[in-house]
Amino acid sequence: MKISRLGEFGLIEKIRKMTSQRSSSVIAGIGDDAAVLKVSASASLLATTDMLIEGVHFDLAYIDYYSLGWKSAAVNLSDIAAMGGVPRFCLSSLCIPHTLTVEQIADFYRGFNAMLRAHRTTLVGGDTCSSRLGFVVSVTVLGEIRKELVLTRGGAKPGDKIFVTGALGDSAAGLEVLKNRVTRSGKKVVTEAAKRLIEKHLRPIPRVTWGRKIALSQGAHAMIDISDGLSSDLGHICEQSHVGALISAEKIPLSPSLQIAAPYLDAAPLDYVLSGGEDYELLFTAPLEKVRKLRSLGIPLYEIGEITRTRTMLTVDGRGKKSPLSARGYDHFLNMSENK
Amino acid sequence: MKISRLGEFGLIEKIRKMTSQRSSSVIAGIGDDAAVLKVSASASLLATTDMLIEGVHFDLAYIDYYSLGWKSAAVNLSDIAAMGGVPRFCLSSLCIPHTLTVEQIADFYRGFNAMLRAHRTTLVGGDTCSSRLGFVVSVTVLGEIRKELVLTRGGAKPGDKIFVTGALGDSAAGLEVLKNRVTRSGKKVVTEAAKRLIEKHLRPIPRVTWGRKIALSQGAHAMIDISDGLSSDLGHICEQSHVGALISAEKIPLSPSLQIAAPYLDAAPLDYVLSGGEDYELLFTAPLEKVRKLRSLGIPLYEIGEITRTRTMLTVDGRGKKSPLSARGYDHFLNMSENK
Repeated sequence: MKISRLGEFGLIEKIRKMTSQRSSSVIAGIGDDAAVLKVSASASLLATTDMLIEGVHFDLAYIDYYSLGWKSAAVNLSDIAAMGGVPRFCLSSLCIPHTLTVEQIADFYRGFNAMLRAHRTTLVGGDTCSSRLGFVVSVTVLGEIRKELVLTRGGAKPGDKIFVTGALGDSAAGLEVLKNRVTRSGKKVVTEAAKRLIEKHLRPIPRVTWGRKIALSQGAHAMIDISDGLSSDLGHICEQSHVGALISAEKIPLSPSLQIAAPYLDAAPLDYVLSGGEDYELLFTAPLEKVRKLRSLGIPLYEIGEITRTRTMLTVDGRGKKSPLSARGYDHFLNMSENK
Repeated sequence: MKISRLGEFGLIEKIRKMTSQRSSSVIAGIGDDAAVLKVSASASLLATTDMLIEGVHFDLAYIDYYSLGWKSAAVNLSDIAAMGGVPRFCLSSLCIPHTLTVEQIADFYRGFNAMLRAHRTTLVGGDTCSSRLGFVVSVTVLGEIRKELVLTRGGAKPGDKIFVTGALGDSAAGLEVLKNRVTRSGKKVVTEAAKRLIEKHLRPIPRVTWGRKIALSQGAHAMIDISDGLSSDLGHICEQSHVGALISAEKIPLSPSLQIAAPYLDAAPLDYVLSGGEDYELLFTAPLEKVRKLRSLGIPLYEIGEITRTRTMLTVDGRGKKSPLSARGYDHFLNMSENK
């Protein structure tokens, strides 16, 4: 069977079923932002890994080595943030084409290290090898959390308010700007706004401190980071919590930069928000009685909707018109289907 | 500067220097088989990662998906074994070309899981993505060990006896057999011996239980697994322990299979031993007074030489003739130098 018939999440589910083993040490395994592992009586270990592949996740025509290093660390730190944990250690594996220079690898690690240091995370090991294929980066980050603070994707409850920690869609719009600038010589969108969108794409900021504060407040029920796009990541929460969601489209925060650049872009802002991904803001749900406490944390919080008992995802526009919202973030294997 | 001027270990050293951060939680960082991390008062965490790339580490013309899965897990478990630890958890990232079928991925995970289950290690997470480049596997294994039992590469002392836990060279000879059989139609070496060499190459057995017993005995000073070839891996022990070594060439254990197949192979058995790698036997050093205790553990032990104060590596043949032994295992970046 072609993998494209299963899709990425179908494949992950198949792997999960094939490899499932009961272990009292695994508090949460495959299917969340990070695994939660019991390593001592008091502390739980968080473990997450992400691979970035040239030609799939990045194009060296659009990203410099410093930013690539930065981003490789950031996307993994963001997974620890999404659990509410504290990142501690990091392992990096690089598969390097022979065309790269030592200086380029050094730039990569300068960016990588800047991100790690900002979050007090120590590089403790890894692997290096030569590649005939392209540049491949695989990063693992280990973190810590007290078991009772863990925020999985599975805890959302009907009536919960849905929050995001910042403007969405900038990263995907930034990539669009980069591509347009590079590939379409007649349409150079190089305004300040466009520069900020590019910056959001190349140098995402993982919300580690905010995720930690949200977890410590014990005010949220479920949390995820927005890596695949709002529709897809909200879909993970709904699926794993066995709930639905109603999103007010006009409450979704858009940055001034995205609004300014919008006329020059191929898609509408909401398309970048819903299916673009790579924003790395946090998405979480919380019951009404905890909202005041959460608002006191000093974190930007945007309420964008509500968790529903009916297991569908809907958006509602300013005139009250509801439309179905299907999870349509990037799926690695559906995207490679020839039928699409 | 071209990476080939630094070589793999020069590059790792550069990365280590660039990223070094003092942290009281890092007992051993970059430069050993696994990092040793303090996560609670009593237990240390071991963390290791290895990437396997199509066209670099494996060729799908020679290896089936089940064996590839098996081997991807085994090489990481072997790194935990080399520290004396107990493997616990595993993360796997797969970058999958769209030509692969669901059945092939399932075969991969059947092999992967068989190896994990044999060592009571649980798959707890990972990443999957599509590849336009080739098949890429990245595995991280986490293990546990009491801090005082950790066996690094850096503890060897002059006068220590050098041991290996089994016959060397089989895996590299097995790959040679596979290549010959596939690429040279006139020379089909398909004897039972050749089959066993192939088996050693495709389905290596990590010495987890033995590594653990050696660590628990507190009889050894330094340990490593043989992944790059005896010369290279012994070289790591010598370098990090600031010592040299004298190896008796005729004491190196060779399997009956390798001896039987030797006349059909391109290189001499000792070449496969010294620079072939992928045997995944353990190499360790121990003081004379601990040898009896180690021999009582019920592990195959072959004494092959002695650690010396003089910081050179030498081999001595049956007639007492000494020759310099240079580390000449596989170096990813020296091997891609055009000058070689």
